Amino acid sequence: MSDALPRTRLYIDQPLSAGAAVALDAGRAHYLRAVLRLGPGDAVLAFNGRDGEYLAGIGALGKSAGTLRADRQTRAPDTGAPPPPRLLFAPLKGGRSEYVVEKAVELGAGRLTPVFTRRGDVSRVNLDRMRANAVEAAEQCERLDIPDIDDGIDLHRLLACWDPSIPLLVAAESGAAQPLVTAVTAAAGQAVAFLVGPEGGFDQQELDALRRLPFVVGVGLGPRVLRADTAAFAVLSVWQAVAGDWRCRQADMRPPHRA
Amino acid sequence: MSDALPRTRLYIDQPLSAGAAVALDAGRAHYLRAVLRLGPGDAVLAFNGRDGEYLAGIGALGKSAGTLRADRQTRAPDTGAPPPPRLLFAPLKGGRSEYVVEKAVELGAGRLTPVFTRRGDVSRVNLDRMRANAVEAAEQCERLDIPDIDDGIDLHRLLACWDPSIPLLVAAESGAAQPLVTAVTAAAGQAVAFLVGPEGGFDQQELDALRRLPFVVGVGLGPRVLRADTAAFAVLSVWQAVAGDWRCRQADMRPPHRA
Repeated sequence: MSDALPRTRLYIDQPLSAGAAVALDAGRAHYLRAVLRLGPGDAVLAFNGRDGEYLAGIGALGKSAGTLRADRQTRAPDTGAPPPPRLLFAPLKGGRSEYVVEKAVELGAGRLTPVFTRRGDVSRVNLDRMRANAVEAAEQCERLDIPDIDDGIDLHRLLACWDPSIPLLVAAESGAAQPLVTAVTAAAGQAVAFLVGPEGGFDQQELDALRRLPFVVGVGLGPRVLRADTAAFAVLSVWQAVAGDWRCRQADMRPPHRA
Repeated sequence: MSDALPRTRLYIDQPLSAGAAVALDAGRAHYLRAVLRLGPGDAVLAFNGRDGEYLAGIGALGKSAGTLRADRQTRAPDTGAPPPPRLLFAPLKGGRSEYVVEKAVELGAGRLTPVFTRRGDVSRVNLDRMRANAVEAAEQCERLDIPDIDDGIDLHRLLACWDPSIPLLVAAESGAAQPLVTAVTAAAGQAVAFLVGPEGGFDQQELDALRRLPFVVGVGLGPRVLRADTAAFAVLSVWQAVAGDWRCRQADMRPPHRA
């Protein structure tokens, strides 16, 4: 049965239920009609981050608008999943930020926060593009929700208003740190956040500020100096494998749908 | 002391020992002179995959050649490290293969093998470019060696001549598999290899062939469908964290050197 499901998955920020009519905006209508060459009667999968996933049929489909009708639910909302990790990262140059967003979505980050640091390559972020990357990655990886993407924030302001009950695991390139797997095992079951610095690393003042904070846990990622994007992929992968939702397979896993 | 070390690390495929003279080819000489603006008397770090890492001084430096003189050893060769994992991967489009090579080097893969599959995007690989990516990544991440990069091989030929004593952990998008962390924990201490398929996944005939082989272990990477590059980063990260050289920090870790 699962092989018979359509390849196209659409994030639609509207209520989904059996029989519900869903309006498509111009962008979605254009994507279905002109990019995917779909038309009335064709089927897609729709999800909205709240109601699971529904099989939906295309109704009208014009240049600037269209409609879907939700049919049956194909996946229920995730329940009982461990709290997803939050990723805080210094924005990177050369498209690597988009890559970090794509991978963080695939790796199940629940929330993404760009953090500005002294040695950061980038002093502003394109949130619209990051959110578009996140939607596309969620549609591709069969995720049922889109992680929140925060506006960029300065590291010191972030730390000043941090909820001290949430461990902040900081990828440490040097200095005191515990092995990543040790910190992840100790934090399993809690809501946690990972912080990955810029390519140039945190500066001394930032390191001193981090070290003074009781909720900060320095984690070591081994003897090689990882690029910032690699560190982000690594902490999320190890979290999901050791403490997250990779520990068991889900019954509703399906073969990949690649457009 | 470590902060006083030069930022530039060079892979030099020549013997290194205290006082050894090292000839630079035209490419290396040009890189030092025209790109990094270095000259006679400047210092670099040199490694060759065998003798650890040496502080070296630039002697002559011309347009088409140059010389280094190795001074003192700054790092001994890695000894007693766990066997590095081998990564077998279906080559990807759009520069993602280069990205996989870069990350695999940072994540400590000991050997990389492009594998051609039925649904692969790419039917040939640029080994020279992959090897150049590997050298650059090793220089950046402070690795002491360059992983071997094999010529591309067809999946069925690879499986036909596989050493059955080496577990082949295959990233499974569906079907029978054990959680990645379970398989990695069970294989800890052994030489292992990871196989990641193409974006479209293995076809049924390939899956049947893999399932029949006693050395193949299907590993599950959770409920989301990961892109092939993400899966490659994830299996190597989890291996290093759980069974590899991230379990303890090395004393000689240094702050990152970014050119």
